[in-house]
Amino acid sequence: MGITPQQFEQLQRRAKRIRRVPSNVIESTPEPRRLTHQVILGVDPSLRGTGYGIIRVARPHPQLLAQGTIKSPAGWPRSRCLVHIFKMLREVLTQHHPSVCAIEGLFYAQNLQTALIMGEARGACLVAVAEAGLEIFEIAPRKVKQAIVGYGAAQKSAVAKMVQRLLNLPELPGPDAADALALALAFARQNSRYSLNAPKRV
Amino acid sequence: MGITPQQFEQLQRRAKRIRRVPSNVIESTPEPRRLTHQVILGVDPSLRGTGYGIIRVARPHPQLLAQGTIKSPAGWPRSRCLVHIFKMLREVLTQHHPSVCAIEGLFYAQNLQTALIMGEARGACLVAVAEAGLEIFEIAPRKVKQAIVGYGAAQKSAVAKMVQRLLNLPELPGPDAADALALALAFARQNSRYSLNAPKRV
Repeated sequence: MGITPQQFEQLQRRAKRIRRVPSNVIESTPEPRRLTHQVILGVDPSLRGTGYGIIRVARPHPQLLAQGTIKSPAGWPRSRCLVHIFKMLREVLTQHHPSVCAIEGLFYAQNLQTALIMGEARGACLVAVAEAGLEIFEIAPRKVKQAIVGYGAAQKSAVAKMVQRLLNLPELPGPDAADALALALAFARQNSRYSLNAPKRV
Repeated sequence: MGITPQQFEQLQRRAKRIRRVPSNVIESTPEPRRLTHQVILGVDPSLRGTGYGIIRVARPHPQLLAQGTIKSPAGWPRSRCLVHIFKMLREVLTQHHPSVCAIEGLFYAQNLQTALIMGEARGACLVAVAEAGLEIFEIAPRKVKQAIVGYGAAQKSAVAKMVQRLLNLPELPGPDAADALALALAFARQNSRYSLNAPKRV
């Protein structure tokens, strides 16, 4: 049983219309937060090398706006490093105006002293980001890996390669920036569909 | 063997002169930093109740300029508390212009999560203080107690009472503010004489 070219075109149009329906349904869900964030900041805080990455949610793939590592020389006192992190992040925020920030959630430190120093770096980041009015969400490292690579115990290099592919970057991003971009991408995924793994607000 | 009143007066004058000598020697030591700080800020960081105290080094006893606790309601997200700490400290700094800050050094946390949260509060404080250009020094809690009460394992209430006495306050300061004032007083002591317990810069 054959069909005419006109019938074939009609079927194609119908099929396209049907495929468009799910996205319309999602757009009208009563959770506006999930689709309002178009520019996302990811931050991976560390005293001597804080990674950051900003992406814009776009089709066919998210777009990179900025990425980098805020480095401090080993000779600087801790407080100077913290002010440096704070000021550099504030500058990045002023340039790109993200509306939401994803930061690493549960983390593992070797000992209390390390946890304290990591906490200080996080504090400096959180103050810069929250003062700029962004909503901040924590995502556990395992969940970031799961969202990006599909495997919760993936290696750092695998995450960096996947970040490069997802953002269509010409080069592999640096390790700190890659972690930050992975956080932003993971947030974008959790935010764009009806996800059960809603990130935790901090 | 008796002495005349004139001889007695002469001896008293001499004794006074001899007693004055050590302070003159200290004033001419080649470490100018030790005597330049006249207004000292003490900070005891904590997410929900950061204590602060500012003293002016003066005779016969140091003078209180400001003290208080930066409180955040339990319902606030962590990032909002951190911004609150940052902003309130910055306000206090603008009002009283201290040139140096003493903060608690080694500390003990129950677990890594607590250490992380304490670190975040410290980070918010350090950014505010270091951005204002103050030098920051850490003093271990045991050394603060030793300097104030004369006993490294003294109870908090004993420290608060001694702070009240040293600053000649009409009322006992609140626990968080008392700890902050104790830090400032301990720094003033370590700073005013040739001390072997030089505080560590952060």
